[in-house]
Amino acid sequence: MENLKQFLVALSAAAAVGFVSIIFVLRWALHYKEGLAWDGGLAEFNWHPVLIVTGFIFLQGTAIIVYRLPWTWQCSKLMMKLIHAGLNFLAFSFAVVSLVAAFDFHNGAKIPNMYSLHSWLGLTAVILYCAQLVVGVGMFLIPATPASWRAAYMPLHIYSGLFLFTSIIGVALMGITEKLIFGLSNPKYKDSPPEAVFVNFLGILLVVFGALVLWIATQTSWKRPSEETLHILHTSGGGEDGTKVSPTVSQLSEGTNTETFGDVRWRSNKLDDDAN
Amino acid sequence: MENLKQFLVALSAAAAVGFVSIIFVLRWALHYKEGLAWDGGLAEFNWHPVLIVTGFIFLQGTAIIVYRLPWTWQCSKLMMKLIHAGLNFLAFSFAVVSLVAAFDFHNGAKIPNMYSLHSWLGLTAVILYCAQLVVGVGMFLIPATPASWRAAYMPLHIYSGLFLFTSIIGVALMGITEKLIFGLSNPKYKDSPPEAVFVNFLGILLVVFGALVLWIATQTSWKRPSEETLHILHTSGGGEDGTKVSPTVSQLSEGTNTETFGDVRWRSNKLDDDAN
Repeated sequence: MENLKQFLVALSAAAAVGFVSIIFVLRWALHYKEGLAWDGGLAEFNWHPVLIVTGFIFLQGTAIIVYRLPWTWQCSKLMMKLIHAGLNFLAFSFAVVSLVAAFDFHNGAKIPNMYSLHSWLGLTAVILYCAQLVVGVGMFLIPATPASWRAAYMPLHIYSGLFLFTSIIGVALMGITEKLIFGLSNPKYKDSPPEAVFVNFLGILLVVFGALVLWIATQTSWKRPSEETLHILHTSGGGEDGTKVSPTVSQLSEGTNTETFGDVRWRSNKLDDDAN
Repeated sequence: MENLKQFLVALSAAAAVGFVSIIFVLRWALHYKEGLAWDGGLAEFNWHPVLIVTGFIFLQGTAIIVYRLPWTWQCSKLMMKLIHAGLNFLAFSFAVVSLVAAFDFHNGAKIPNMYSLHSWLGLTAVILYCAQLVVGVGMFLIPATPASWRAAYMPLHIYSGLFLFTSIIGVALMGITEKLIFGLSNPKYKDSPPEAVFVNFLGILLVVFGALVLWIATQTSWKRPSEETLHILHTSGGGEDGTKVSPTVSQLSEGTNTETFGDVRWRSNKLDDDAN
């Protein structure tokens, strides 16, 4: 892998920021709010932000960059696809349970459902995420799907995935805003009590996590090499670990234009970054 | 240009959604709220969303995709850079005035400044946008800047630009949420009065506008061809309009790997979309 050190710095930063976000949201629920329970009350609602941050943001972010980890390049592409799909399915499951928690609480407290922009965009994101998951499985995990369909769909799959991930962080920030306004009364949000400042920092952590995941996902030099390249390296005795393989992989990848099962690349879809 | 029809559909959709967003935010201010004035009161605050939507979102979105318009490919790259920078500077100016309106109103109404996540992220975005503008001018408009610096900085410039644009839409959605909660009292936001539903739709329009601009900006086949390619076409009698030029430009671009003043492309930075 090119720039392995930079990759490891970015990955470590993303992991650290992700873990700290999870600690922050747990501390918000357990220390500042009513804790976690499944009782139809405020403690049930608290599962909503906890599951969104841990599942719909952290697990989804992990699913997005899982192909980039050099120590997984020895695994088969099929295995990596299953891990990618599995993590996304787990993230989706967390999101569904988090929605149930929010609806349950609203119903118990006689608060209307689905009136806010947060709820409109959030539910839309969950539905589109589910569609992305179903179409993704159909396209990339059903062996009968023609390679040409995969090639045609891949750019949209990547764009939609990154756009949904980004949107979901945006929706989470709106949710944090709502909860801080409604949940703080004396002192209020505008009086900046410790909880308000603490949760604002949670919002910043989520933005930084998103920025790091998007950076890692869009750096082409950090991509998993094609199956063809990995096969050549494997049969010629290379490929024992990502570090040793790197320069050869990089050189080989440059010259290949493969379109094979499970690893499709197109010259025409490259983003060579000269919009300016 | 490849897929000219699809480009025109995406561009028309972005323009239409952008214009409708501006109409929506104006109707919000003029019909549902207190109108627009510069009196330190609520009518002054209303400049805040109006200037953000028209300037910081619509003009910025236009600046991002201005290189993609095939009818500008006859203009020199320097002219296009000046237009890109000018539009971004205009967007930044709108944002600064919109901040003054918000601070003025807060000060007049004795509402604390800078307590919310919306304000933290919003001010950070404006500061980073200013930094992006200054560094962008230094890198791409000062003739003395070495081409190697431009090449090294370009991927970060593009990533930061798209990330800031996306973040600013996210911050706007948080602002809409705040304003609907604080600005509606009888009936409240949760009672879904017409204003609430109308402004929720404004939020959706902003998300769709963002999605379209990001789609147009990341489709490599819609990029402005390199200066070298355009020069070849011009001297060989082509290049009178974007439509006629298209197939030749596409074929020529595929084979070129230029690194010239103002138009730097790297094979190593291509995103050929095979993360899966």
